[in-house]
Formats: sequence, structure tokens, C-alpha cells
Amino acid sequence: MKTCDIIQNAVGAKKCLAQLSSEQKNNALLAMACAIEEQAEQILAENARDMDAAKGKISDVKLDRLLLTRSRIQGMADGIRDVVLLPDPVGRILTERTTADGLELKKIAVPLGVIAIIYESRPNVTSDAAALCLKSGNVCILRGGKEAYCSSHAIVKAMQDGLKKEGLPAELINIIDDIGHESALELMQAKGMVDLLIPRGGAGLIRNCLENASVPCIETGTGICTVYVDADADQEMALRIIENAKTQRPSVCNAEEICLVSREIAKAFLPKLKKLLVDDRKAAGIVPVELRLSEEAAAIIDGTPASPSDFDTEFLDYILAVKVVADVREAVEHIAQHSTHHSEAIVTCSEENANYFAANVDSAAVYINASTRFTDGGMFGLGCEMGISTQKLHARGPMGLEELNTYRYVIKGTGQVRK
Amino acid sequence: MKTCDIIQNAVGAKKCLAQLSSEQKNNALLAMACAIEEQAEQILAENARDMDAAKGKISDVKLDRLLLTRSRIQGMADGIRDVVLLPDPVGRILTERTTADGLELKKIAVPLGVIAIIYESRPNVTSDAAALCLKSGNVCILRGGKEAYCSSHAIVKAMQDGLKKEGLPAELINIIDDIGHESALELMQAKGMVDLLIPRGGAGLIRNCLENASVPCIETGTGICTVYVDADADQEMALRIIENAKTQRPSVCNAEEICLVSREIAKAFLPKLKKLLVDDRKAAGIVPVELRLSEEAAAIIDGTPASPSDFDTEFLDYILAVKVVADVREAVEHIAQHSTHHSEAIVTCSEENANYFAANVDSAAVYINASTRFTDGGMFGLGCEMGISTQKLHARGPMGLEELNTYRYVIKGTGQVRK
Repeated sequence: MKTCDIIQNAVGAKKCLAQLSSEQKNNALLAMACAIEEQAEQILAENARDMDAAKGKISDVKLDRLLLTRSRIQGMADGIRDVVLLPDPVGRILTERTTADGLELKKIAVPLGVIAIIYESRPNVTSDAAALCLKSGNVCILRGGKEAYCSSHAIVKAMQDGLKKEGLPAELINIIDDIGHESALELMQAKGMVDLLIPRGGAGLIRNCLENASVPCIETGTGICTVYVDADADQEMALRIIENAKTQRPSVCNAEEICLVSREIAKAFLPKLKKLLVDDRKAAGIVPVELRLSEEAAAIIDGTPASPSDFDTEFLDYILAVKVVADVREAVEHIAQHSTHHSEAIVTCSEENANYFAANVDSAAVYINASTRFTDGGMFGLGCEMGISTQKLHARGPMGLEELNTYRYVIKGTGQVRK
Repeated sequence: MKTCDIIQNAVGAKKCLAQLSSEQKNNALLAMACAIEEQAEQILAENARDMDAAKGKISDVKLDRLLLTRSRIQGMADGIRDVVLLPDPVGRILTERTTADGLELKKIAVPLGVIAIIYESRPNVTSDAAALCLKSGNVCILRGGKEAYCSSHAIVKAMQDGLKKEGLPAELINIIDDIGHESALELMQAKGMVDLLIPRGGAGLIRNCLENASVPCIETGTGICTVYVDADADQEMALRIIENAKTQRPSVCNAEEICLVSREIAKAFLPKLKKLLVDDRKAAGIVPVELRLSEEAAAIIDGTPASPSDFDTEFLDYILAVKVVADVREAVEHIAQHSTHHSEAIVTCSEENANYFAANVDSAAVYINASTRFTDGGMFGLGCEMGISTQKLHARGPMGLEELNTYRYVIKGTGQVRK
């Protein structure tokens, strides 16, 4: 189908979805989950076509992201069932008052309308995004990467079959058929029809959306996250936190990329850091972390000399840029200049320094004595996540169901006019 | 001063302002109000220069907006003192929980940072916007219209003198000196430095900002507001509401521009509407409302035949587009096609139709049996207003102090790492 027709269909389906009760939406979600299980064979067959076409053309990491297995399909269905259990965000009364004129004023959470999601090669984003949009009362338009074309279409077909079983229109969940660049641009510029665009993927995709979108867009994901080890830190705790933030899953946005160390303890701390991240890992036969060192750090331990750009790079790899700073003030200054305002941590036993850090680091999530890896909708108690916003307007940090709503004032009167 | 230097100064002042206590901010506001009173003579003299230069060049309405009097200056000082009385939005704990991992998580309201306001000829926007930004912890960069150059600079000078008296840097309140188009463009594109741009003025200014801004921008103001008179309406109430919504202050964004009337009562209602808005006003010697009528309405009463564009125009004048519709469903449909999603009203005694209207009209404010003129920060109990957002992201409807904040998650741990 042509992209403009798909967008039109989505707009037409808004009203139907906005009027569904929580029970109707939950039944639809359950039917979608069942249909995915029932159509597992077809989904696997379509995924095999994608895999065959992609082999040799994309990296092994990307191939693994593209691959579906029986258990991954089960995971998709279970993920949809998890969304059933979350509270319905639509219709929440956010404030309620009787005005001086006797008007009954309510501020009510309502769906945004049509949400477009442009993503890359992971087919499970398809079911994940569709379920969150449906539960929050929004019609979705999905545009997956071309490598996952057959897989994501098969998943959408199953979900649409689930909707139809519940007597609901298939147009509550839409997927773009045209995988050319024009279709992405058409979505980005469907002003007045697409109420929110969420890019999910690498820095290039996000930049492309931000530069070309005339529809409202949420900047997600890029994380140049910093851990600052204060002079007053419990150094053993700092080592555990850095090891976790850097190496537990280096390819994700809440992984640490930069380590700042207070000058007062640098000579004592940096050799322990190198032992943990480089020497011990080599000895254990696991991949060591490459340390990219500022001049002062390089005078204390061995490593790669850092280039200036190393402090502005999201490595997403076993690489850590390390710098010695004077104190918490210089650390905050460095973060203001170099971070992407995603997640930053301080390790310290000084309450004063912790408070200074929390008050002055202007990032979505600021940690005191904990790993940056916790920035996540599930960990924050939102139950789910549509992405992590690194902007300040509307939603900041993990976006759950509530962040996929807007609000409307409904005012009941008895004929009041303004004096 | 060069615009780029002013922007740089504003960014540099963010940290100072974010750390001020409520008391310090309130003392600063009181000092600003006093300084405006003390420098009233100088402000009036500078305003006289603006008025002399503008005479013959701008309309009488605009000249009146530009004019300052002793009482208008007093109004500015009083307006600042009103802001002192409002609660400080910064530091509110929006949610608080202990996570499964034992992390103490707080979602805390924090200032956006630097807010730029581009406005037109009313000099009092200068003090109004500066006071709201300061109270909400934001450094402001003001760019007024060129006609008000001397007036707004004199007002800013007074406010900065007030800040200095309190030992605070003048750079908490900034005004652009260069009145060329380039300076507006520079503000719109100061990505990473300006955290929010708010245009306050006519449709042209707002469109210009939306089209050119790469910084986050809030769409404000344009209001093509509708009143729908249902078959079940109390017709006398409908007449009072329409008279108020259309004629009490036709030049503002929450005034009515479109009247939809149910076919069932059109023959009875429209003659009464014409008598009230046209004949009675002519007889009383006050300006009559020009009715622009759909074909069906024109078959019932006299008036100007409506062109299609009349239902997509913000007249801001004594003009009302009138159309006969089948029922509440067609009214909702018309609003979806033609309104700017600002404020719409239904007049009806039918609870069913009222609920249908409230559930399906996707505008910032939806009224049942009340005038659209109530959409206003003061009327809604926000205490003040920085503008009325017609977009769905971040803030919708009147923007008060809370809407000038974002939030940050602060997470305290005891060394937790992610499993």
C-alpha cells in the first residue's frame, strides 16, 4: 500500500482506538499475543527469507539481532501479555478543581493520536512498540529496517489477525510497505497527521529524524554516560560500578563511556582500574577494555593516549575514555561539555559532593553510588519502555505508557461567560 | 552586545539561577518590581521615543499596545509581585519510590535552563516573561519587536538593576540588542544552548519560529475556536455564550470564530443569533458582527455568503463563520478538519451529546455550556500564563510555572550494579 494511504488509514482509526475501554484493549492485546504464537511457523519462515537475503551483507552482530527463534517469538508474545498487566494510562484525572467562576475543570490524560516509530533490524521492536501504542490508546505506524521486511510484516499480519478476531479494525496497527528513503521522509513530514515520531536505533537514524522531521519528534538513545570517582569514594564500590557500567553490556545506551577520577586518588585508583578492566580480563581470557587516557592518566597507567574526540564518542564497545579532574566541580563542568545528558554517576561517601553532583548535572538520570545501567523503564518501575528520551521537553529518560499520552482540559459549566 | 555573546552569557548564568532558593528568587522579583517603579520616568521617556518613531508607521491598535502609561508601568510591577506569591515549581518531587534493587529513585522538577521568548510590540511582555522565567529557575533571553526597542531595553535595565541590588548577576535576564532578522534566526538555531523557544505574537511570527527553529519550540496561540449549538441546547444560554465568546474581546486567541448549529434547531435559533449579534448591536450603536453564512444558514437569515476559507480563518475581529450541521457527530468532524485545537464548546442539555463531544474533540480545552474565553492560565488556576500551547507534546493549553520546568531522575544507591 502507498505510504500516504497508510498514514490516512491510521488517522481514520484514531477515534475507534481512543474510545476503547481498558478491557477491550487488553482483550485485543491477548488476541495479538495468541496470534503471534499460532503463526510462529509462518513468522519463522519469513524470518528465514530475511536471514538468507542478509547473510554476507550485514555484520554478525546485526544478523543476530535479525534472527528469530521459537523462544524469541515466545518472548514477543509474553512481552505483549506483560503490557496487559500494566495500568491503562488513558483517562487519568491529572488535576481537578472548581474555578472561581464555578466551572468544573478536569485535566485528563488522553492518547497523542498517531505515533510513528522508525526502527532498524530487530523484528521484536515490531510487537513491542505496537503493544505499547495500543495500550496507551495510540494508533501506530511502524517502519522497520529493510533487512527485517518479511519478519516484521509477518509479525504485523499476526497482530492484525488478533485484532480482527476481537472485531477491531486492522488499521489500529500499521506497517509501511515501501522501504525506500522516501517513505521515512513522508512519515517525518506528515504534519497534522503523525502526532509523534520516535526513532529507535543508531545515532545516524536519530540525527536523520531530528534534521528532517516537521512532526513532533522525541530524541532518544544516544548515551555518552560518565562515572565520576570522587576523592571520598569507596574505591572498591567504584570498581564494581565501573566494571558493571562498562562491561555488562557495552552496546547499549546506558553503558559508561567516560570515567573521570579525582586527582587526589588517581595514583591509588587508576592502577586498580587497569588491573580490573585490562589485566584480570586478559588473564581470564575475556575481552579486555581498551583504556583511552588523558595525559595525566597516561602518566600513571599504561593505555592508549586519548584523542580529544574520545571524550565525545559513544563507543558502544569495550573502550573507556579516562580523565583525571581536580574535583566534583571540574567533573560537573566536563559532563556539561561532553555528555549527551542521558545518565551520569558519582561514586562518593561525601554527602556534600553527592548533593552538588545531583543538583548540577543536568542529565535525565543522575546516580549516586550506583551503575548507570539502571536507566531503563523496567528498572524505574514504569513496567515497560518505548525508548529513553535525552531531550528535556515532554518526556525525559525512560518513556513508559504515561509518556505516550498528552492531556486535555474538559470544563463543565452552567452557562458561564467571562466578565 | 552581539547576539552570540548574549546567548553565551545566558548559558553561563544557568547554574547560578538553578541554585537559588525560593526566598532568593522572591527577593529578586521584589527588587525588580521596585526598580521598575523607581525608574518609571526613564521607562516613560524611552517609551515616548518608541511612540514618536512608530507614529504613522503602525496601526492605531498596535500603537495602543506599544504605549506605556504610569498605570501600565504600575501594572507591570504588580504583575511581578503576583508571581512572588505563586508556589516555586522547582524541586517538586513528582514521584518517589524504592526500586526492586533497593535504589531510592526520585523524579524531581528542575528548570529547563535557558528560555528564549520572541515577541512583538507589547512592552509589558518583557517584565511578565522575565518574572515567570526567573521564578521557574530559567534564564531568559528576550527579543522584543523593533517598535518597542527603547521601552523594552529600559524595562530590562530596571529589572537588572533590581537583580544587582540583590547581589545577583544581570545575566539572569537578557535582551537581544540586534533587531535584525538574523538575531531571531540565531536564537531559533542556538541548539544545545537555548532549551526552549516560545514565540508570543501573531500567526506569522509563530509560523516563522516553527519553520526555522532547530531548538525546541512551543507552538502557541492561534485559535480558530468553535461553539456548537446542539439540538438539545438551552438556546438563551447558547446566545449568551456566543455573544461572550465572539464579542467580549474579539482580538484574542480564545475568542470564537466559528458557530455550528444543529439542523434541528437552525430555523428557530439563527434568527435569534442574527438579532443579538447584528440588529440589536446596530440599534445600540455598537459594532455589529458580520455573519459569514454557509449555504444552508444563508437560506434562513441574511448575511455574507461564506467562502470555504472562512472556516479556516482566525478573524480576530467582529466576524463569525456560521454553518448548519446534522448533529454532534458532524460538529466533531468539522472541528477535527478546521479547528486549531485550541478551545471548543458545546451548548447542550443532553449528557450523551456532551460526553460524546468531550471524548472526541481533540483540543486543548473542551467546554460544555461555557464560553471559550475562559482558556487562560489565571482562569484555570495556574496563577499566571506564559502563553497557550496548541501542540500536544510537553504542555497543552495555558502554560504556567510548572510547564516551564522539566524533570530529572536522581537515584541514590549503596553500590548497586545491574544483574
